[in-house]
Amino acid sequence: MEQKIDPATKGYVFNHTMLRVRDPKVSLDFYNRILGMSLIRKIDFPDWKFSLYFLAYLPEGTKLPEGDVERARYTNSRESVLELTHNWGTEDQPETPYHNGNTEPRGFGHICVSVPDIKTACERFESLNVPFQKRLGEGGMKNIAFIKDPDNYWVEIVQPGLL
Amino acid sequence: MEQKIDPATKGYVFNHTMLRVRDPKVSLDFYNRILGMSLIRKIDFPDWKFSLYFLAYLPEGTKLPEGDVERARYTNSRESVLELTHNWGTEDQPETPYHNGNTEPRGFGHICVSVPDIKTACERFESLNVPFQKRLGEGGMKNIAFIKDPDNYWVEIVQPGLL
Repeated sequence: MEQKIDPATKGYVFNHTMLRVRDPKVSLDFYNRILGMSLIRKIDFPDWKFSLYFLAYLPEGTKLPEGDVERARYTNSRESVLELTHNWGTEDQPETPYHNGNTEPRGFGHICVSVPDIKTACERFESLNVPFQKRLGEGGMKNIAFIKDPDNYWVEIVQPGLL
Repeated sequence: MEQKIDPATKGYVFNHTMLRVRDPKVSLDFYNRILGMSLIRKIDFPDWKFSLYFLAYLPEGTKLPEGDVERARYTNSRESVLELTHNWGTEDQPETPYHNGNTEPRGFGHICVSVPDIKTACERFESLNVPFQKRLGEGGMKNIAFIKDPDNYWVEIVQPGLL
């Protein structure tokens, strides 16, 4: 299954996935408080009226680089960053204007967070009133769950070793 | 900018992003030959008529674990995996049935690959006839580019240090 890799692609990194969000305050709370990610960079584009929020899991004790240039370099060098785009003003809408890709027209499906203990994780999500798309034990794949973020994007939850 | 992290989320990993694709042969060629990713796992679900393909960047010399269980554990433990979902039969359609999220209804925006030298990377993409959504030097952000994968999903190309 290992393929030939063009040496010209050496050093390439799958850096981030971008999702548009209605209200960054609500989304940052979800990804930080519920899912344990840290905001590692924020950029505002006042001319174009949007902001970007970059989140990632940081190993315990990580000290983020100080200074814009070094922070940007860190953010763009590492793997598994989640970029949230906020087009200013959408937070005033009562519902998200965004489409999660799982009804027509389909395309993007979900992001996935893997956790050491999925039963414990799902119990915690329940206790925090996180909406589920699919609970453990439901559907054809009993050992995975899907929760929904504030814009209804699906977040798959898996436990390595259970799939 | 560093936030309080609930210790209950310790060990959480942003594992993957899932995109539906029309034809896995065409998409695997794109992500392997053009972007340098490796297929690290494939699962078929004949009852439900779909297959999953998991791709990732592997450090040079990586030896993938043998055996289904260990391969699954590796795939679900690591960061920055791209999951491509193939619903059987879509490859017979002349055009992708999937929506890239950047026209209405919007939502998901793009994935991003960071590269050590964006000028060289973009010249190589041109020579391989990869379609561009935005070339270097175009638009408001001169130092980034967007290419399009076979289903028209946008892949942002950035160079750390240039943003």
